[in-house]
Amino acid sequence: MPNLNLDRAETAILSMDIQKAPVRRSAMFRERNVGQAAKSVLDAARKAGVLIVHVVIDYQPAFFSPKNKFLQKVRIPILSAPGVDVGELLEIVDEVKPMGDEPIIRKPRMNPFFGTALDSMLRSRDIDTVVLMGVATEFVVEAAARHAADADFRVIVLEDCCAAFSDDAHRVSLHIMDHLATLATSADFLENV
Amino acid sequence: MPNLNLDRAETAILSMDIQKAPVRRSAMFRERNVGQAAKSVLDAARKAGVLIVHVVIDYQPAFFSPKNKFLQKVRIPILSAPGVDVGELLEIVDEVKPMGDEPIIRKPRMNPFFGTALDSMLRSRDIDTVVLMGVATEFVVEAAARHAADADFRVIVLEDCCAAFSDDAHRVSLHIMDHLATLATSADFLENV
Amino acid sequence: MPNLNLDRAETAILSMDIQKAPVRRSAMFRERNVGQAAKSVLDAARKAGVLIVHVVIDYQPAFFSPKNKFLQKVRIPILSAPGVDVGELLEIVDEVKPMGDEPIIRKPRMNPFFGTALDSMLRSRDIDTVVLMGVATEFVVEAAARHAADADFRVIVLEDCCAAFSDDAHRVSLHIMDHLATLATSADFLENV
Amino acid sequence: MPNLNLDRAETAILSMDIQKAPVRRSAMFRERNVGQAAKSVLDAARKAGVLIVHVVIDYQPAFFSPKNKFLQKVRIPILSAPGVDVGELLEIVDEVKPMGDEPIIRKPRMNPFFGTALDSMLRSRDIDTVVLMGVATEFVVEAAARHAADADFRVIVLEDCCAAFSDDAHRVSLHIMDHLATLATSADFLENV
Repeated sequence: MPNLNLDRAETAILSMDIQKAPVRRSAMFRERNVGQAAKSVLDAARKAGVLIVHVVIDYQPAFFSPKNKFLQKVRIPILSAPGVDVGELLEIVDEVKPMGDEPIIRKPRMNPFFGTALDSMLRSRDIDTVVLMGVATEFVVEAAARHAADADFRVIVLEDCCAAFSDDAHRVSLHIMDHLATLATSADFLENV
Repeated sequence: MPNLNLDRAETAILSMDIQKAPVRRSAMFRERNVGQAAKSVLDAARKAGVLIVHVVIDYQPAFFSPKNKFLQKVRIPILSAPGVDVGELLEIVDEVKPMGDEPIIRKPRMNPFFGTALDSMLRSRDIDTVVLMGVATEFVVEAAARHAADADFRVIVLEDCCAAFSDDAHRVSLHIMDHLATLATSADFLENV
Repeated sequence: MPNLNLDRAETAILSMDIQKAPVRRSAMFRERNVGQAAKSVLDAARKAGVLIVHVVIDYQPAFFSPKNKFLQKVRIPILSAPGVDVGELLEIVDEVKPMGDEPIIRKPRMNPFFGTALDSMLRSRDIDTVVLMGVATEFVVEAAARHAADADFRVIVLEDCCAAFSDDAHRVSLHIMDHLATLATSADFLENV
Repeated sequence: MPNLNLDRAETAILSMDIQKAPVRRSAMFRERNVGQAAKSVLDAARKAGVLIVHVVIDYQPAFFSPKNKFLQKVRIPILSAPGVDVGELLEIVDEVKPMGDEPIIRKPRMNPFFGTALDSMLRSRDIDTVVLMGVATEFVVEAAARHAADADFRVIVLEDCCAAFSDDAHRVSLHIMDHLATLATSADFLENV
């Protein structure tokens, strides 16, 4: 079991895009019980006084650029399909719902640091370590890991708290992130926090 | 009267910090009827189909860094004084209240481009010209003008739609912004839009 | 063959990290003749008057954070090994050497938009489409594709002008980028420019 | 004399735009002996092992946007006038020339944090306090103070190490910065470092 060297006051959990729309597209989320693993991390973080930041997709169709392929081909078709209830699709799933005054970052694009106050929030509290979990591994989680690494945060990815849209993508994404981040599990976190 | 060369589809009005707390500190706001001038600009922009973005102070005490002097010395004392109703102090004043689905950018610091989706919003719509109004001239307006100029937006400052905390600061701030922006008035805008 | 809809005045080629150190770690670079494909693209871009921006690793050991795992585990060991000639390792390989006054962006981290003037350069010229090539596919190329997509650039990745550190990583990285970008080849570019 | 509470390891001096072109436009620079005051600060910082970062104007005419008024009206006319020697105009003046391997940040626009690795450099070294000096007070110095304050750095402005293009602009700019920063003098710095 790795020693994560966690300093509670300088660590933040980022719980990202664990909303119904992406969760439904991830068979892995259900098969591996990712919601329960993530819940155990949030519970432990709350008990330990570790900052939790919830990151969610902010759906603002008026600002969806025609040049942005990801929005045009992935996000808009899902969220603007006929009969769709956007509010319901963007609901955070029960296991990882924000509690009390835990901050929520609404992001306009994929990377949670892009066009948001996330970096400012973390810096203002002298956070130097971010612990990542979310859906999908290869999209929001890897985007966050890449940016946080470039920005000189210490990055920890909790593998069993992430779910991808395919096993292959999960595996390769973790392989890439292994160059930028410490890979660990929810059990490691519970042991170390 | 200057020709502002406005292309409606590529122009956005930024209406910034015209909230009760800063407005009350600005005698100039009342004396010069800044609210009415700003209202006339918003009305004309709505008629012309020009994008309006409302920028407001986002008060999140948990993310106020002890190193940030402006927050410690100015914003926190005003907004956390005993008996203060923060919601009321941060209300946008009646003349310039958002209408319909006009977007609102909540900013954590002074510059409206810092830690927000403002740049993303403007780029996604191919906006290349920003028209600035707000309180105070020397704080949020000048911060926005400086950033927008560095980011290669064409910047227009509507002098009579801005109010400072002193005449001296208003005058010198406009002098600085004259190097970065086109100075104009609400009348110029109404003529040109 | 896809129609890339290239507007020469609004397109930029980003030729990234094709320097001796990463190239030597990529068997794929030699086996697939990536240097020649990239050269054919640069030659065509020069003839067509398309902007070329060279992106290179900037080695500044004094600013390598101890918290940055990628620098500590990957970049520093390679570039500060005993007997190493850093200047030689960071040389751009012959096929894709900058010519004339083509701009060079020196980046301190992985993403070429992080801590550099790249976004400013592209915006100042009204570039809306970036054509990516580089080494490694799964590192700098994917980092650039992700950021450029979030920033609402149209992104084109030239598959045969990218080389990864493994076939598996190349394949999965292209699969991820297919959600954000148009995948094409050097032949497509030559046809369309 | 204020107690600046300087921690040498977490402090950086930013010496900004003290190049011949802006210096020649500032009568105040000569009249108040700003070069000598700045030199005394750099000498003391070197002795104390405090990080010094030199920030300079990077002149890249190819990336001067036609929408950027400051570049079009101020920078380009000065630097591209007939017979002008750009290299000479952008030389750092003798008193504050970089020594040894002191890092130099070349900025494409006014704010030294815009389009540069400055933030990355400071974060990577855990710098939390920036000490500002430069020409002109109301341009680069105030731009840096505003950005650094928003980014939660502790900001100290050394008044006698800054020169403006007019006495009025110097005075009002310091008044604005007094809300964001600690105003001090070179003597305060020498006493406290």
